Amino acid sequence: MGIVLKDILAVLPGQGKDEVKQTSIYIEGSRIAAVGEMPEGFREERVIDGKDKMVIPGLVNCHTHSYMAFMRNVADDLSFMDWLFGSIDPIEQQMTDEDTYWGACLAIIEMIKSGTTCFNDMQMNIHQTTRAVKESGMRAVISRGLVGNGNDEAGQMRLRQAYEERDAAKDCDRLSFMLGPHAPYTCDDGFMRVVSEEAKKNGMGIHVHLSESLSEVGQIREKYGCTPIEMADRNGLFDVPAIAAHCVQITDKDMDILKEKKVSVVTNPASNMKLGNGFAPIAKLLEKGVNVCLGTDGAASNNSLNMFHELSLLTLIHKGVNKTPQCISAREGFRIATINGAKALGMEQEIGSIEAGKKADLAILNLNTPSLTPRNNLIAGLCYSANGSEVETVIIDGKTVMEDGKILTMDEDLVYKKVNEIIVRMGLDKKEY
Amino acid sequence: MGIVLKDILAVLPGQGKDEVKQTSIYIEGSRIAAVGEMPEGFREERVIDGKDKMVIPGLVNCHTHSYMAFMRNVADDLSFMDWLFGSIDPIEQQMTDEDTYWGACLAIIEMIKSGTTCFNDMQMNIHQTTRAVKESGMRAVISRGLVGNGNDEAGQMRLRQAYEERDAAKDCDRLSFMLGPHAPYTCDDGFMRVVSEEAKKNGMGIHVHLSESLSEVGQIREKYGCTPIEMADRNGLFDVPAIAAHCVQITDKDMDILKEKKVSVVTNPASNMKLGNGFAPIAKLLEKGVNVCLGTDGAASNNSLNMFHELSLLTLIHKGVNKTPQCISAREGFRIATINGAKALGMEQEIGSIEAGKKADLAILNLNTPSLTPRNNLIAGLCYSANGSEVETVIIDGKTVMEDGKILTMDEDLVYKKVNEIIVRMGLDKKEY
Repeated sequence: MGIVLKDILAVLPGQGKDEVKQTSIYIEGSRIAAVGEMPEGFREERVIDGKDKMVIPGLVNCHTHSYMAFMRNVADDLSFMDWLFGSIDPIEQQMTDEDTYWGACLAIIEMIKSGTTCFNDMQMNIHQTTRAVKESGMRAVISRGLVGNGNDEAGQMRLRQAYEERDAAKDCDRLSFMLGPHAPYTCDDGFMRVVSEEAKKNGMGIHVHLSESLSEVGQIREKYGCTPIEMADRNGLFDVPAIAAHCVQITDKDMDILKEKKVSVVTNPASNMKLGNGFAPIAKLLEKGVNVCLGTDGAASNNSLNMFHELSLLTLIHKGVNKTPQCISAREGFRIATINGAKALGMEQEIGSIEAGKKADLAILNLNTPSLTPRNNLIAGLCYSANGSEVETVIIDGKTVMEDGKILTMDEDLVYKKVNEIIVRMGLDKKEY
Repeated sequence: MGIVLKDILAVLPGQGKDEVKQTSIYIEGSRIAAVGEMPEGFREERVIDGKDKMVIPGLVNCHTHSYMAFMRNVADDLSFMDWLFGSIDPIEQQMTDEDTYWGACLAIIEMIKSGTTCFNDMQMNIHQTTRAVKESGMRAVISRGLVGNGNDEAGQMRLRQAYEERDAAKDCDRLSFMLGPHAPYTCDDGFMRVVSEEAKKNGMGIHVHLSESLSEVGQIREKYGCTPIEMADRNGLFDVPAIAAHCVQITDKDMDILKEKKVSVVTNPASNMKLGNGFAPIAKLLEKGVNVCLGTDGAASNNSLNMFHELSLLTLIHKGVNKTPQCISAREGFRIATINGAKALGMEQEIGSIEAGKKADLAILNLNTPSLTPRNNLIAGLCYSANGSEVETVIIDGKTVMEDGKILTMDEDLVYKKVNEIIVRMGLDKKEY
């Protein structure tokens, strides 16, 4: 089926910097067939009028825990320990597979509604998330969270599960998989080596939390006499394509390792602030040429999965921290939220920009909104004034998953109802906040 | 006419902290007649079903320059001097009264759509703003920006204009006025004294920019040997109710002055970061007991007038700066964005909370949205996950100005069209960004 976005303002990769141009975009099957001229033999089956609209490549959320969306706003304004052990852990003890499914559905609805078309997830209930991804039409990269010590049975069992889960999802090419050693404080050095060997053997990438908090850095230094990034590097995690979430508390030497080993850094500004961890040195990482991408983290520590919100944080906070208004421009921020994310996931030939041959993963925004008026510098608008609600229609893999604000692939109201029921069942609606 | 919000979740002032409660709210004329039980003799003319809805007091935006909305995204990622003299000044030279009217209309539409029901404005084109406020049904406090030296004619003329403008708006009780000495670097000490005497004589409050940047602090120290806040204090600005915007670069002594003189501080986190000025010491000001309120600043330096965005920044960034996840809780943030703003404007008996006898300035939100699901801790949701697009219906002064997302009092599409035309006329659509 051929979809045409006719005479629409589009963010296109220009010479060295993205440009906003009036053009037409032709979609055939799951891919962009052409940008500009109609390709030969194109059968026009549906035309979307581009008047008062803008199309952008779908945003790429490079670090989240989708099932946690059902825990949104359950544990705020708490220290990390009270948050994790006092609030999140007790909920995870009670949660069922079905709860994690509804959580993943809620996360996916929120992401689609705010223009995200691909997310990189780490968690323990893969089957439920792949189920939600398949139904919704979303694109995702999924890592089972692995924890273990050396060759212990617990770690081995989780690795086996990771492969089973990957194999069970072979029928959906919107899904791909990485290995997810959770963090240096939950995986010892022996287990890190096991996982990196497995990744090498199986041609898989690595998704890991690194240097999120000062307490993690202290703990790892005490145990191994090095930083979390040095520990990961020593154990081979960076010998395969790796994506490291957070990297808030890092040294210059850490940055050099990340650069040399071509590790992608996912920054999660809201979560890092909300849990009191601080600000990652993103300006410096960019200067060094590290591939920085953007993520929301889970809804229990953000509490939003709206990448427009995250993009505004990314392009604002470092200007404040560095007292430099030029720090992380809108154009740089927008690339971080799109093509850099695609690169981090090893998918830069497939997604992350509007180009002929790439997957048709697109978000169409309404320009007749206060935040995108006037229409003079729309890339700035995407970072500094849009809030994500401008997104009207979303196409993933050539398929329209949202139209005029309505999700076509899932029953939104049912998802809200189910998630509200979980909270009532757990008694969290009666909790004193 | 009597409006009932029936069986609705409402944020109400509780014992010491706000609470979310299921209740009904009765509106008669411009005021809330009752919360809970229907008052005697109430004539029910319209019922809004509260199912799946939540009502909050309208947000109070305590510092903006509304006309600048037409300059949204025209000058980003620039140093302050390039921003002001290279971009904003040349636009102001070309702008007409009509441009400032459409700018104010755009600002008001954006604010209403994101739940703001009152704003505190400083600018030079009062008649156009009061026109937009009157038409839109908005509530506003307006200060003509005053600049001058001693008793010079320029300053005196602006003071006369300020009074004329105030008097011309006497027919609209949604409008009130303050005097607005712009800043210590545009008003000398003699003129500051003139303005503070005028404010005392006329029973008016003061709205002023103070200690926004390090360069301002350096300049004032060189000229007067003191901080901008000391300079304002010496010249009597704080002898009347005063509201000071920014206060980013301040000393402990400055904070004590602000507390002692009961000055309200408006913090503008997005603008302060975007222009590279840094983070105001809000946690410390709150600790000292200063009345802190929240503002967006103008759209040329934010670039959003969405108070939900500002509220999320307020409740996130100070946790990051102070590495303390408890810093500025959601409940504290929500009060800063509502009742504290009302206090700053001398209107705490009239607006800022949902209480019988107060003006009916209310925003009704849709709870069937991802950001407000689940419904367990909705005050946290307002700060950390909502983006403002959940606001469906807005009532100001008892009158419905927006219903189901549609502005009833203004022609939205006309405003977008007019603002886009200004940008084209000025050639800003052709500018290289």
